[in-house]
Amino acid sequence: MAPAVAHSQAESLLAFRLLLVGGMFSASTPPPGPLEKVFQYIDLHQDEFVQTLKEWVAVESDSVQPVPRLRRELLRMAGLAADRLRGLGARVASVDAGFQQRHLCFSENSSPACKGKLYGRGTTDNKGPVLAWINAVSAFKALDEDLPVNIKFLIEGMEESGSLALEELVRKEKSGFFSSVDCIVISDNLWISRRKPALIYGTRGNSYFTVEVKCRDQDFHSGTFGGILNEPMADLVALLGSLVDASGRILVPGIYGHVAPVTEEEKRVYEAIDLDVEEYRNSSQVKKFLFDTKEELLMHLWRYPSLSIHGIEGAFHEPGAKTVIPGRVIGKFSIRLVPHMDMSVVETQVKQHLEYIFSKRNSSNQMTVSMALGLHPWIANISDHQYLAAKRAIKTVFGTEPDMIRDGSTIPIAKILQDTTQKSVIMLPLGAVDDGEHSQNEKINRWNYIEGSKLFAAFFLEMAKLHSS
Amino acid sequence: MAPAVAHSQAESLLAFRLLLVGGMFSASTPPPGPLEKVFQYIDLHQDEFVQTLKEWVAVESDSVQPVPRLRRELLRMAGLAADRLRGLGARVASVDAGFQQRHLCFSENSSPACKGKLYGRGTTDNKGPVLAWINAVSAFKALDEDLPVNIKFLIEGMEESGSLALEELVRKEKSGFFSSVDCIVISDNLWISRRKPALIYGTRGNSYFTVEVKCRDQDFHSGTFGGILNEPMADLVALLGSLVDASGRILVPGIYGHVAPVTEEEKRVYEAIDLDVEEYRNSSQVKKFLFDTKEELLMHLWRYPSLSIHGIEGAFHEPGAKTVIPGRVIGKFSIRLVPHMDMSVVETQVKQHLEYIFSKRNSSNQMTVSMALGLHPWIANISDHQYLAAKRAIKTVFGTEPDMIRDGSTIPIAKILQDTTQKSVIMLPLGAVDDGEHSQNEKINRWNYIEGSKLFAAFFLEMAKLHSS
Repeated sequence: MAPAVAHSQAESLLAFRLLLVGGMFSASTPPPGPLEKVFQYIDLHQDEFVQTLKEWVAVESDSVQPVPRLRRELLRMAGLAADRLRGLGARVASVDAGFQQRHLCFSENSSPACKGKLYGRGTTDNKGPVLAWINAVSAFKALDEDLPVNIKFLIEGMEESGSLALEELVRKEKSGFFSSVDCIVISDNLWISRRKPALIYGTRGNSYFTVEVKCRDQDFHSGTFGGILNEPMADLVALLGSLVDASGRILVPGIYGHVAPVTEEEKRVYEAIDLDVEEYRNSSQVKKFLFDTKEELLMHLWRYPSLSIHGIEGAFHEPGAKTVIPGRVIGKFSIRLVPHMDMSVVETQVKQHLEYIFSKRNSSNQMTVSMALGLHPWIANISDHQYLAAKRAIKTVFGTEPDMIRDGSTIPIAKILQDTTQKSVIMLPLGAVDDGEHSQNEKINRWNYIEGSKLFAAFFLEMAKLHSS
Repeated sequence: MAPAVAHSQAESLLAFRLLLVGGMFSASTPPPGPLEKVFQYIDLHQDEFVQTLKEWVAVESDSVQPVPRLRRELLRMAGLAADRLRGLGARVASVDAGFQQRHLCFSENSSPACKGKLYGRGTTDNKGPVLAWINAVSAFKALDEDLPVNIKFLIEGMEESGSLALEELVRKEKSGFFSSVDCIVISDNLWISRRKPALIYGTRGNSYFTVEVKCRDQDFHSGTFGGILNEPMADLVALLGSLVDASGRILVPGIYGHVAPVTEEEKRVYEAIDLDVEEYRNSSQVKKFLFDTKEELLMHLWRYPSLSIHGIEGAFHEPGAKTVIPGRVIGKFSIRLVPHMDMSVVETQVKQHLEYIFSKRNSSNQMTVSMALGLHPWIANISDHQYLAAKRAIKTVFGTEPDMIRDGSTIPIAKILQDTTQKSVIMLPLGAVDDGEHSQNEKINRWNYIEGSKLFAAFFLEMAKLHSS
C-alpha cells in the first residue's frame, strides 16, 4: 500500500492556501477499485463539487495581509477543510503556524465565451486542486469502496506570505506525520497547455543578491557636487552591467560550471512538449524572445540559470526630473538556479566577480555584496513510481501522454520535503495554462476541476497497482 | 547715473522668495555719498535690521507646497516687502505670478558657539540678502542722503517651485521695467568661504535626459520569464553604463568639443581662491574626491561638464527582495553644461550615442531618449563695470579682494536676464559657505547680514563713481 501526501506550495505572492491541516485516510483493502463507478460518481456529483468550491472560494482566506478579519477567515477556511476531511472519515490535526489569506468572489460564468469557467481568486490556486483531491476520496467513500492507498493531506494556508513555519514543521514531523509516507504529491502550478495535462519534475532555485555602493548616507546635489565624486550610481550601474550580456548569458566567471549537461533523453522530453511558440509569444505580449525554438525557450526557462536585475533602492525612482546624486544605492538582482548549481559556490562566484569589477574602477566608495535569499532548485527522478502512476492515470482519464515539464519559478517546499523526508516528490497540476493565477480573472475550467478529480482517483489506483506488483 | 536691479533667483528646491514686487528708487544727485555716515547708521541700527529679518522669516512664505494657507502667507510676505519699499519712497508694482513658500522659525542664538548666528529658513536664502539691499537704501534715506544711483528691485517668490512665470515677465518688461536698467545684480548663492567675500561670474547649465526601455507595459515574474527575454533593466543598465567612466569623464563622443579651453588668466583666478580642500572634503563627508588639488576640484565643479545618473523609474525600488522583471523602465541622468556647449548639439550627441549603444545590443525592446529639460549655462565678463564696482566695495567694507567664483548649479534666470535684456549680470552673494541653505539649521551670520548691508551701500557709490568718471 502506498500512502500519498497531497500538499500544495508555490512561490508567488497572492495565492490561497489553508491553515495547516493534517488528515489521514486509511486504505483497508488493496485495489482494484471499480474506477468506472468512481468516474461516474464524480460526473454525477459535479454540481455538488462545484458548489463546495464556490463555498470555499467565498471565504476570504487571504494570507497576504495580516488583518484580524482576514485571519479569522483563514481560521474559518481551515475549519471548513478539517470538517470536510473529518466528514470523510479522516483523523485531522490542526497546527497553527501563523497566517493570513486572499480571495475574490466566485462566479460560474455562463456566457458562451466563458462557458464552463469557474472564476474567483483561489479557484485554480489553490482551492480547486485541494478539493479535487478531497472529491476523489469522497467518491470512494460515497460508493463505499475501500481507498486503494493510505492518504495523508497536508494543507497549509500561508504560502503567499512565505510559509515561514512550514519548513520547521516538516523537520519536526519527519518521524511523525511523514514516517509512513512513501511519496509526496504537490498540486500547485499549471499545465503548459490549455488541454494537455502535464507532470512537473523540477523547479529552479533562486539566489537573490543585493549590492550596496555607498559614498555617504545623505544624497548630494548634482550642481554642487557633480564632477568631483565617484558617484555611487555610476559604480552601481557598472557593477550591474557586468552581470549579464545582451543575449541573456550570465557573465559571472564559472557560473555555468555545475549546470547539468543536456542529455539526448532530455532533448526528447523537450521535443515532445506541446507548446505553440507563436501563441505563447503573443499571449506574453512580447515582440521577440531571445530564442526562436520551443526547445531553446523551455530549456532557458527551466534548466539553465538566468539572471534578472530587479531594481535599485535609494536612487530617484519617481516621475519627473530630480537632480540628485544618490549617496547610497542598493542594486537588486537574482539568479535562478538549476541542477547541479551549488548555492554557496554561486555566492562566492558572484561576490568575487563584483569585487573584481569594483576594484578595477578604483572608486573611493564602499561596496557590500550580500546574498539576501537562497533557495535550492528541485529536480525529481522521472523514473520514480509516482511519475509512472501519474502518467498511467493521465492516459486513463485524458487519453494522452502528459507534457513532462518543469517550472522556472522557485517552490522551496518541494526541495525541503525531498531533502527532509528523503521521499520522492511529484508535482501533479490540474489547472490550464490560461487560468491566470493571482490575476483579477483567476479561473479554473469546470472540465479541469472535474476531470482532475477523476485523475486523482485514478492515481490512487495506479499507485496501489505499482506497489502491489 | 547707474540704475541697478537687485533680484534673487536660485535653482534649488526649498528656498524662500517673495511674490514678485517691483520697486523703484530714483537717485536725484550724483555721489559722493558720505559712506562713513551710512556705515555708522547701519551699525547703529543693526538691531532694527535683525528685528525686521526676524519678522520676515516668521512669515511662512513657502512656495513649494501649493497649500491655500501658505499661499496667503506668500501674499502677506509680498505685502510686507512692498510696504517696506513704499515706506522708503519707492513706487511699487505687484505682479501675481502664481505661488507657494517655505519657512522655519527664526531664532537668534546667543550660546557662545552660535553667537551672532541668525537661524531660520529664509535667513540666508533669501530674505536676509533681500533685506540687506533694502537696509542699504534705508540708510541713505534715513540720513536724508540722495541715493547715488537709481535702483529697481525685482523680488520674486516662486523660485523654489521653478519661477515659471518669471521668464515671460522679463520678456514682457524688456522695454518697460528693464528699459532704463544698465546692469543687474542677483544676490543669491553663498561665498565659498566662511569669512572671505566672493563674486560669482558663471553658473553651469543642465540638460536632463530620460531614456526609456520598454518590452511591455506590465512587469514580468523572473521565475516564469527569466532567461528568454531581452530584459529592459539589462538594456538600461548597459545604456547608463556607457555614459561616464570611473574617473568622471563623460563618454558621449564629441561632448567636450565646445568646452572653452582653460586660459592662463583663468588659472590665476582659480589659484587665488580661498579653499581648504581638506576642510571641504571633511565637511562634505566624502572619503575622497576624484581630484586632489583645489584648482582641479573647482574647475570640475564650475567650468567642466559633469554627468550624473539620478535613478530609474519603473524598477523595483523598495526595501526587501522582489523577483520582478520590470517591463518598462526609465533611466534619468543629466549633464551640467558649461560655456560654450550648445544644448541642441548636446542633445543630438547624447541621442546618437545611446542609439548606437542600443543598436549594438540588438535588443527587441524599444528605446526612447528625450531631453526633458534644458537650461543654458551663464557666464559674465568679469571686466564689466559692476564687477569692478563690487570688487572696490568689497575692498572698502571687508578689506580684501573677493574670491572670483562660479556656481556648479544652474540658475536659469541669470542667463534669461542676460539674453533678454542684453544687460550685464553680476551675482553678489553675502552668505557664508556654512549657512546651510534649505537645511533644518539654515542661518545667516549677523556679521554677514550687517556688513552685507554696508557692502551694498558701498556698491551703489562705486557704481555711481564708475559711471560719472
